[in-house]
Amino acid sequence: MLNPISYKDNKIIILDQTKIPNDETYIEIDSIQRLYEAIKKLQIRGAPLLGIAAAYGIRLSSVLNINKNTDDYKKSLLKDIVLLKSSRPTAVNLFNVLDNTENIIKSHDDKFRIHESLVALAVHEEDKSMCDRIADNGVTLIKENAKILTHCNTGVLATGGIGTALGIIYRSFWEGKNPNVYVGETRPLLQGARLTAFELASEGINVHVLPDSARAYIMKDKNIDIVITGADRIAMNGDTANKIGTFDTAINAKYFNIPFYIAAPTSTFDKNASDMSDIPIEQRAPEELYKIGYQGLIKTKTDFINPAFDITPNELITGIITEKGIILPPYEKNIPDYI
Amino acid sequence: MLNPISYKDNKIIILDQTKIPNDETYIEIDSIQRLYEAIKKLQIRGAPLLGIAAAYGIRLSSVLNINKNTDDYKKSLLKDIVLLKSSRPTAVNLFNVLDNTENIIKSHDDKFRIHESLVALAVHEEDKSMCDRIADNGVTLIKENAKILTHCNTGVLATGGIGTALGIIYRSFWEGKNPNVYVGETRPLLQGARLTAFELASEGINVHVLPDSARAYIMKDKNIDIVITGADRIAMNGDTANKIGTFDTAINAKYFNIPFYIAAPTSTFDKNASDMSDIPIEQRAPEELYKIGYQGLIKTKTDFINPAFDITPNELITGIITEKGIILPPYEKNIPDYI
Repeated sequence: MLNPISYKDNKIIILDQTKIPNDETYIEIDSIQRLYEAIKKLQIRGAPLLGIAAAYGIRLSSVLNINKNTDDYKKSLLKDIVLLKSSRPTAVNLFNVLDNTENIIKSHDDKFRIHESLVALAVHEEDKSMCDRIADNGVTLIKENAKILTHCNTGVLATGGIGTALGIIYRSFWEGKNPNVYVGETRPLLQGARLTAFELASEGINVHVLPDSARAYIMKDKNIDIVITGADRIAMNGDTANKIGTFDTAINAKYFNIPFYIAAPTSTFDKNASDMSDIPIEQRAPEELYKIGYQGLIKTKTDFINPAFDITPNELITGIITEKGIILPPYEKNIPDYI
Repeated sequence: MLNPISYKDNKIIILDQTKIPNDETYIEIDSIQRLYEAIKKLQIRGAPLLGIAAAYGIRLSSVLNINKNTDDYKKSLLKDIVLLKSSRPTAVNLFNVLDNTENIIKSHDDKFRIHESLVALAVHEEDKSMCDRIADNGVTLIKENAKILTHCNTGVLATGGIGTALGIIYRSFWEGKNPNVYVGETRPLLQGARLTAFELASEGINVHVLPDSARAYIMKDKNIDIVITGADRIAMNGDTANKIGTFDTAINAKYFNIPFYIAAPTSTFDKNASDMSDIPIEQRAPEELYKIGYQGLIKTKTDFINPAFDITPNELITGIITEKGIILPPYEKNIPDYI
């Protein structure tokens, strides 16, 4: 399988996801500034994978600053943490790792050095194991020959393991359930058409790409059995931030009475967010929309609105599949039992 | 204003809509084969405009065959009609013109020649006038500072006049109602981002383009007041075929209790279609989806599903704005009074 992130010879090695599926190019990252840019540009992406990238970033920062005195070492690390936190605002995994590290740094005084390799490895291994357990729980929802609709990319390219929503799909395939997977292309950056289609097709899974606008059409035409997507941040009442279009998909699923599930590790819950009003939505550059087009580029001064995420209200979510089990409504009451 | 179709010196002159907004290129069409290709490639598009193109096609065919004996003349015209009918299956306007002409040809025996210029001009003029009357009726629904969501392109570039849904928007702007217009980019061929944004911005109307997946986001974020789209074919029970994504939009509008209107001339009703099951859906080439991408081209053998249209069931439609008035439910009962 592809290796979206690793660490070797004091460099973070990432697969450049903007080039997939046409080219499999790996980038060697040797500074936090470069890591910040790679995250901004979505050369590395996927909420769980961003948490792992942050952990490797801490490891790299520690290595780069290891010879400084403790005060300067800590200052340098904290500065790098501030930079990484400013990369993308919505996915909570990155903040979890960075906030935890920040607390550790601030709570130590003398001759402090982070056990950097252990932290990064632990985060990576933990995410891998969480994917497996999410698949254990989620695969029970998948019937034989299921028609599954998903959105964006939540697989090997988005996590430290087999994925969240896609991990469930992989597992159902390996168990011989013969799933058919439908995915919107996921404009503007086409994570569905480029990444999910590539991942699943490489494994031999039947995958069909459609315009994002064709979700109602396909739900009706193919009698979709279940919708499963990932999550970038989940509030304590179950409101879920995920790739733009998830909200539309959930509304459509409701109209057709198709069960709509979120698959995410419990680390995706934000204890500080009581509902969607506490979740920031990243607005991305309009160029992502107009620098692609029938002729390759739309020369226009029109206002392009490009939110990276939307928030699906809890009332539209049938269940949240985590590594600890499937959380069902009422979410306000049940979520605290799982985190 | 732009002139999407005209007829001069025995040539049909069309604006190449695949090049808008980057280039304003006109194509001279001197054969029915070339007209067929222009329709297939969407160099000319828009349900009402396709009706006009068909009428000009009849005119051109008559000119090209005028010196043949009556039998051969009629055979040539009927052959051209068959070709044009095979161009695109969903928009009914093209079929209306061609079916009518076919009946005229078949019902005449001797020395028959079509009064070709009159037919084409009549269709063009009638469509222009219909747009104005649709705007008369539709503008009553638009309040001051309205936030209007539309889909695809239904304006000057889609009709013989100011448009259907966009005609209403133009009129509301000219009456000083200061509309703000939101439009999905309309994948795969970006008629929203390329054509609607271009048309409205040229007129000075505030227009905002978003990914098709961001419709639920924008309905919530901007408190959209009304949704108006066009139609390619309407069944006698009100079920409406229109650009892929219209169905999704209508489901979203229902979720937010936003009124959802169709604007179309009564010629869009198909008397032979009792409901959506009688409306064919054009499936277009998968290349339209994968020959565009983050790197310009996705090299993948994945299955791409590319329906050009979907069908919005009547239960989601608040009203149908026609040149004769606004048709309200129950549609089975009310539509026959208008056509």
